[in-house]
Amino acid sequence: MIGIGQPGHIDQIKPANVGAVYRLIDTYGPVSRIALSKYARLAPASITKIVRELMEAHLVGETEYQENGLRGRPAIGVVGETQAWHFLSMQISHGSLSLSLRELSSKLVVEDTVPLPSQAPLPLLTRLVAEVDGFFTRHQRQLERLTAIAVTVPGIIDAQAGVIHRMPWYEVSDMPLGNVLSSHIGVPVYLQHDICAWTMAEALYGAARGCNDVIQIVIDHNVGAGVITGGRLLHGGSRTLVEIGHTQIDPDGRRCYCGNRGCLETVAGMESILEHTRQRLIRQPDSPLNGMTLSVDRLCSAALAGNRVAQDVITGVGLNVGRILAMMVNVFNPEKILVGSPLNGAASILYPAIQRCIGQQSLPDYSRRIQIQATRFSNHGTMPGAALVKDALYDGSLLLKLMQG
Amino acid sequence: MIGIGQPGHIDQIKPANVGAVYRLIDTYGPVSRIALSKYARLAPASITKIVRELMEAHLVGETEYQENGLRGRPAIGVVGETQAWHFLSMQISHGSLSLSLRELSSKLVVEDTVPLPSQAPLPLLTRLVAEVDGFFTRHQRQLERLTAIAVTVPGIIDAQAGVIHRMPWYEVSDMPLGNVLSSHIGVPVYLQHDICAWTMAEALYGAARGCNDVIQIVIDHNVGAGVITGGRLLHGGSRTLVEIGHTQIDPDGRRCYCGNRGCLETVAGMESILEHTRQRLIRQPDSPLNGMTLSVDRLCSAALAGNRVAQDVITGVGLNVGRILAMMVNVFNPEKILVGSPLNGAASILYPAIQRCIGQQSLPDYSRRIQIQATRFSNHGTMPGAALVKDALYDGSLLLKLMQG
Repeated sequence: MIGIGQPGHIDQIKPANVGAVYRLIDTYGPVSRIALSKYARLAPASITKIVRELMEAHLVGETEYQENGLRGRPAIGVVGETQAWHFLSMQISHGSLSLSLRELSSKLVVEDTVPLPSQAPLPLLTRLVAEVDGFFTRHQRQLERLTAIAVTVPGIIDAQAGVIHRMPWYEVSDMPLGNVLSSHIGVPVYLQHDICAWTMAEALYGAARGCNDVIQIVIDHNVGAGVITGGRLLHGGSRTLVEIGHTQIDPDGRRCYCGNRGCLETVAGMESILEHTRQRLIRQPDSPLNGMTLSVDRLCSAALAGNRVAQDVITGVGLNVGRILAMMVNVFNPEKILVGSPLNGAASILYPAIQRCIGQQSLPDYSRRIQIQATRFSNHGTMPGAALVKDALYDGSLLLKLMQG
Repeated sequence: MIGIGQPGHIDQIKPANVGAVYRLIDTYGPVSRIALSKYARLAPASITKIVRELMEAHLVGETEYQENGLRGRPAIGVVGETQAWHFLSMQISHGSLSLSLRELSSKLVVEDTVPLPSQAPLPLLTRLVAEVDGFFTRHQRQLERLTAIAVTVPGIIDAQAGVIHRMPWYEVSDMPLGNVLSSHIGVPVYLQHDICAWTMAEALYGAARGCNDVIQIVIDHNVGAGVITGGRLLHGGSRTLVEIGHTQIDPDGRRCYCGNRGCLETVAGMESILEHTRQRLIRQPDSPLNGMTLSVDRLCSAALAGNRVAQDVITGVGLNVGRILAMMVNVFNPEKILVGSPLNGAASILYPAIQRCIGQQSLPDYSRRIQIQATRFSNHGTMPGAALVKDALYDGSLLLKLMQG
């Protein structure tokens, strides 16, 4: 730690230990107290105490289970009690809002997607609060004890303060969504940028589970990335995002809304790809792609079916994205690169182009071992929000609130 | 924390608190206990206890001082006692070894630089131990209580295990320098890659003091970088280095020792720059640079004096390095970029080229506020090693060892 930070308080060690033990139970349960003591490197007495407190709060319970490979009497193991606890996970997208009620295990109870127009008479904050109220009213019969609300959004946010500074599509300026929802509903609110939350979800229970060093690249309307380095989300607590979409790829390229020219997003964003394909098709009037309304899915299918234009376009995206990824590989030395994109429909064309770039343009010692694979979740949906709640359980902060009632 | 780590032990909070309080004393001392309690957000009783323990170990002392703007009786403040404690800081370079004895404040007591030939009858490890013994014998009359040894080296190392896996210039394979020195001399040994240690030194008491987000680029024989992000050294505890020197700049460029072609290091390393200048001078037989043995210092002087070839070469380095830095700016959003290079002699030509790249090729919101400046320390010397000791004091781990005697 180079920066001058606050030292840990004596009181703070407890949530960290409780969180770590809860995480082990959530990951390995049913698990014996002896095994917990070994995994956590905490004294058996500490484990007994922590497990007792978690049981008293009905966050974990005991169950009989057969230990691996052993016959005889079943052992007593500790497991998470997740059904009696719910949380709300919300995602704001272009023109719509998804709300889901989930068990503490992240299991879905019910999900709604409602329209959220960019322009409307009432302010966005008022509409969001009304949508949350409406959701709880509609589903109150299914609702168990509510623990938290998670919100994922695109834009520029302050995760710690719960403030959305700016958003695409919506007129927003420093909207204090976290505080407003938290005092209205009475539970903690966790806010995070959608790509960061998605990267956390992949690392906690998705395609990067168990990895400490991961680059996740998102190629969609926008082009962005999330990074896990040394087991931590890069910029997890700050306003900074990994803004690779605004790295210049073509000095003579198109003007970007950021103010510069030829940014990666202007050549690899979905709208740009479709526009680029249309330009190429003008010179190929007999291409079967001319006869249909062009979409990314159709582009992928055509590429897989051998269409040359479609293959070239997708390979081109791979090479441009690969150039930026090659630099990031030299910076982070990741185990995996996850690709979150509608172009995953043509992964067999996209990934080799990325792999070729990385192989040629970054340190062979680093590039050699990297796996490129698709994300498990997509840009849409409420699983990324669920990762925020999981993270707050695992660091002990949310657990402690639940244990104190 | 995404990765499954060890939870903190109840006992571990103490060194963190002691380290944080010691850091505050080292930074602000003489400082009152009341001010310490405020800065550290620890109860006055905890501060009293920690200060008492540090005083009993003679690591801090009391002094009278006049509080800012207040007249009347002087206050009693706490200051570090650093003279009675020494540490050894070593740096292995190409053909030489620097050893310095320093006070705990990092103040130099005595420094030697001895030859360390690449080829010699005895193994490197044996020679290093003998040089340390020789140094202590020569300077034993000046030596106070020895607290630690810091070692900085180029190459591939495991900082936590104290092992040097591979080094340039020397035949080394998994050399356990940390353990060997530690059991021979009887103090903890801190090993770190030289660029990482240098970046820490700049952040702790150099040109990046007080910054939480810094990119330090080194343009020398090798081209590398160190990154501080969110107040932490990137890859501080792992074998990974930021290997930007091996990012491809020119697909048709020269073969690099890493196995690829046209790496940044093949166009921006000092030997490459001089070679490139010589090639250009062939076409300019009347250039004054032809009459002298070319060196980086002479190249810088010529550029400052208006020589066009020299200016072009240095600008070219700035543009190539700037391309990689632009991408890193989008990833890290730093407050500062530090340049550690013999080319700092022509900073007025090099820095604007870098600045231009960043301005055009990275997000304006990020590039706008960045300061580019020279590092305070250089690639050679033992101040980077001193940062390792400072860091071990500030995290409390070394302090606790000293307090336990």
